[in-house]
Amino acid sequence: MFAERYADRVEFLSPSSIRKMMAIARDLIAHGKTVYELNIGQPDIRCIPEFSEAIDRKANTGQINYSPIVGETYLRETYARYLNNFFDHQKRPHLVIDTENVLISVGASHALTATFLGICNPGDEVLVVEPYFSPYKGFLAVAGGTLRAIPTRAEDDFALPPAEEIEKLITPRTRAILLNSPNNPSGKIYSPEEVERIARICIEHSLFIISDEVYREMTLSDQEAFSVLQVDFANDEMNEKLKNAIIMIDSASKTFSLCGVRIGFVVARQPILEKLALVVAHTTACVSDIMQYGVAGAYDAILSQPSYLQEMRQVYRERLEATIAAIDEYLPNVIAPKPSGAFYVMLKFPEFEDITEFSHFMLEKFNIGNETVAVTPAASFYLTPGFGRNEIRIALVVSPEKMRRSIYIIAEALKAFRQFKANQVRPML
Amino acid sequence: MFAERYADRVEFLSPSSIRKMMAIARDLIAHGKTVYELNIGQPDIRCIPEFSEAIDRKANTGQINYSPIVGETYLRETYARYLNNFFDHQKRPHLVIDTENVLISVGASHALTATFLGICNPGDEVLVVEPYFSPYKGFLAVAGGTLRAIPTRAEDDFALPPAEEIEKLITPRTRAILLNSPNNPSGKIYSPEEVERIARICIEHSLFIISDEVYREMTLSDQEAFSVLQVDFANDEMNEKLKNAIIMIDSASKTFSLCGVRIGFVVARQPILEKLALVVAHTTACVSDIMQYGVAGAYDAILSQPSYLQEMRQVYRERLEATIAAIDEYLPNVIAPKPSGAFYVMLKFPEFEDITEFSHFMLEKFNIGNETVAVTPAASFYLTPGFGRNEIRIALVVSPEKMRRSIYIIAEALKAFRQFKANQVRPML
Repeated sequence: MFAERYADRVEFLSPSSIRKMMAIARDLIAHGKTVYELNIGQPDIRCIPEFSEAIDRKANTGQINYSPIVGETYLRETYARYLNNFFDHQKRPHLVIDTENVLISVGASHALTATFLGICNPGDEVLVVEPYFSPYKGFLAVAGGTLRAIPTRAEDDFALPPAEEIEKLITPRTRAILLNSPNNPSGKIYSPEEVERIARICIEHSLFIISDEVYREMTLSDQEAFSVLQVDFANDEMNEKLKNAIIMIDSASKTFSLCGVRIGFVVARQPILEKLALVVAHTTACVSDIMQYGVAGAYDAILSQPSYLQEMRQVYRERLEATIAAIDEYLPNVIAPKPSGAFYVMLKFPEFEDITEFSHFMLEKFNIGNETVAVTPAASFYLTPGFGRNEIRIALVVSPEKMRRSIYIIAEALKAFRQFKANQVRPML
Repeated sequence: MFAERYADRVEFLSPSSIRKMMAIARDLIAHGKTVYELNIGQPDIRCIPEFSEAIDRKANTGQINYSPIVGETYLRETYARYLNNFFDHQKRPHLVIDTENVLISVGASHALTATFLGICNPGDEVLVVEPYFSPYKGFLAVAGGTLRAIPTRAEDDFALPPAEEIEKLITPRTRAILLNSPNNPSGKIYSPEEVERIARICIEHSLFIISDEVYREMTLSDQEAFSVLQVDFANDEMNEKLKNAIIMIDSASKTFSLCGVRIGFVVARQPILEKLALVVAHTTACVSDIMQYGVAGAYDAILSQPSYLQEMRQVYRERLEATIAAIDEYLPNVIAPKPSGAFYVMLKFPEFEDITEFSHFMLEKFNIGNETVAVTPAASFYLTPGFGRNEIRIALVVSPEKMRRSIYIIAEALKAFRQFKANQVRPML
C-alpha cells in the first residue's frame, strides 16, 4: 500500500471551530432546518451596490486578466486615499500612506499568511493578545512558527498587561507582536496608550508590529479605533524605527459586507512590501483583477458617501442593544461584557466546565419550530489551556428580532440540555 | 535603526522573468508605446460570455459570502462532470472523479503552493521535468523545498529520459515528481507511455505524482493530452497505489481566457484533499464565492457547447501557423520546434550566448513605428546551469497578423542590436 506522508506543519492545522460549526450548520440548512448562523462573522447585509455595478462593468469588457503581484494601481491608490481620509477625519496625526505602501492580498487571511511566511523561520515565535482570532495559529503554523499568548481577561475588561509583563514573554525567537483592534472575539478597542505600549516594546526589541485592523469601521460605541499608523512618539528616531516595524493588515470583507470577495491589504514601508509581495507571487501568483476592480468601486463610493458606513454601524448597534437586552432577560446568569467594536459578543456560562457539547446539542439535536442557533465555542480563541472553555462567541449578523429570537432559543436549549444530561447520567437500577 | 529581518525562504524568491518583463512592458504601454506582450500567457481572447452572465447574476444578489474551505459544491460537482465528460469523449479508460475529489484553490499557483506546503518539509525535494514553468521553484521554496531537474532537450524533442536515469535522481528527501503536460514552455505533450513511466516510478518509490494539466484543452495538433487520471496498469494493486499518489492540478485561467479569475483545482483522493484543504484554509481562508459561481457558469457552458473550445483551439492553431511561417521567413537561423500543446513557442538563437540583454534592448530601446515586442528569456525555465540562455519563450496571445508583425520586429531588433553592440565595443582611439 502506498503510504501518503504529509509535511509536519499539517499536524498543527485543524479546521477552526468556526468552520466546523459552519459545515454542520450548512448541512442542516440544506436539509430544511432554520439555523441562525451566529457562528461566523458573515454579515447578512447586502453588499455595497457600487461593488456590483463595478463588477458588471468589468465582466462585460470580457477581459479578466493577470494582475501585477503587488495589486492593481487603481485599487492601491484608492485604498491609500480612503485610509488617509479616515485618519484626517479623526483630526489626529497619522502616517501618510502612499500607493507604494499598499500590497493587495487574497483577503486578510492571505495578508497574514504572507506576512508570517515572509518574516518567520520554522521555530520562530509571534506574540498575540489573547483572546485572539483562532485561525492566526494555523496561519503561523504554515510558516513553521508558534503563537504565544499575551493574556487579557474579561474580568479586567481585556486590558493589556504592563510592559514589563509583556517583555517577559519575548525570547530570542520572537519576531513580532500581533495586535487586533477592534478585537475579534472580545470587541475590545485598545486605547492609544495601549497601542503605543505595544509599539514601544516592538521597536525596543526589534520586533515587527503586526496590526490587524479589519474591524476599524465597526465601532459599537463612541470609542473610535486607534491605529498603529496614528502612534506618534514625538521623537524622530523612534518614529522612524516604528515606520520600519509596522505591518498593518486590512480587508474589504467586513467594511462592505463582502466576505466572499477575498481582497485584503498590507500597509507597510515599501522595502517590507517588496519582500511580502514575493510571497504573494509565490503563493497565489496574484489577486483577481475583477475583484480588485469591484472593491475599488466600493472604496470610491464611501469616499463620497460616508453615510453608508454610518448606517451600517447603526444597524450593528441596534443588533447589539437587542442582544444585550435579550441576554439580560433570558440568560440572567450569563456574563456578557458589552463590546466596543467588531460585531461579536462573548457569553460566559458559569454553570459549564466545557460548553462544546452544549453547542453541538443545540445545533444538531434541538429546535423550536424547526429553528435553532449555531455558535462558536470560545476555547479556540485562547492559547492558555483551560481558558474560554465555558464561553461562546456569537456574531451580530442577523436582525435585532432574530438576535432576540436566537438568545431565546439558546435559553430554551439550555433547559433542554440540562434535562438531556440529567437523563443521560441517570444511574442504571 | 530598526533592522528588518526576513525569513530564510524569502532569499530563494525572486520576481519571475515573466513578471519582470510584464512590469516593464506595462510601464511602457502606460507611456504610449505599443508592446506586443508575448512574454506572458495572458490571452487577448474575450472570456467566455457565460462567465460574465453568471457574475452579473451573483453580484446582483448582493450576497458575496465566505465559501466552504474545500470550495462551493456546485463548482466541485460541475468541474467533476466536465472532467469525466472530457475523458469519456476520448473513449479511453479513466478514473471516475466525484465531487469529493475536487478542491478549489486561488488558481493553479495556489493549488501547487498548497500541495507543496502539504507534503514537503524544509529540505525535501521535488523532481520536475525541465524545461519547466519557472514559478514552480518559488512555490516550492515557500515550503522550504528544493526543485531538482529531470532534464529533457529540444534536440531530443523533449523526450523523457529512461526510468533508470530518472530513478538515479531520487534521494531519501524526494517527495514527488511534478509533470506538466502539455508543457509550458516547451509545448511538449507527453505520450501515454511517458506518463505511465513517471507514474510507475512514483508508486515504486512512494512519491506523489503531481500532474499540472492546466493546458489540457490547448492542443495545437492532433495529439491529445494524456492525463495521469487515464493511466491504467491493468493491475489492481498498482492502480490502487496510483490512486493514492495522484495530485492533479488544473485551472480555469487558460481554458476560458480567465487568468484574472484566480480559480484552480486539485483533484485527488479525499484523504489527500482533506490535508490540502487545511493548507488552503490557513493560507487564504477560502476562495471567492462569486468567482466560483462565474467559473461554474463557464464549465456548464462548455458541457453543452463543446464548439467553444474547438473554436479557441482553431484560433491558437492559426496563430501558430502564422508564427512558424514568419520565423521561417524572417528568422531563418533560429531553431523553433513546433509545439504540440499549450500556446508557447521556444526560439533558440544560436548566435547568442545570453539573450537577456537583447530581450531588454528590444523592449526598452527599440521600436518600429513606436511598436515593439516583449518576450521571456528562457534560462529561468531551466534548473541546469547554462541551459536555455540563448532561448526565449513567446506566447501565442495576439492575432496571426500581430504574431507575424512581432516576428518581423524581433528580426529587425536583432539587426539593430548587432549594430548597437558593434558600436558599443568599438575600441577607444
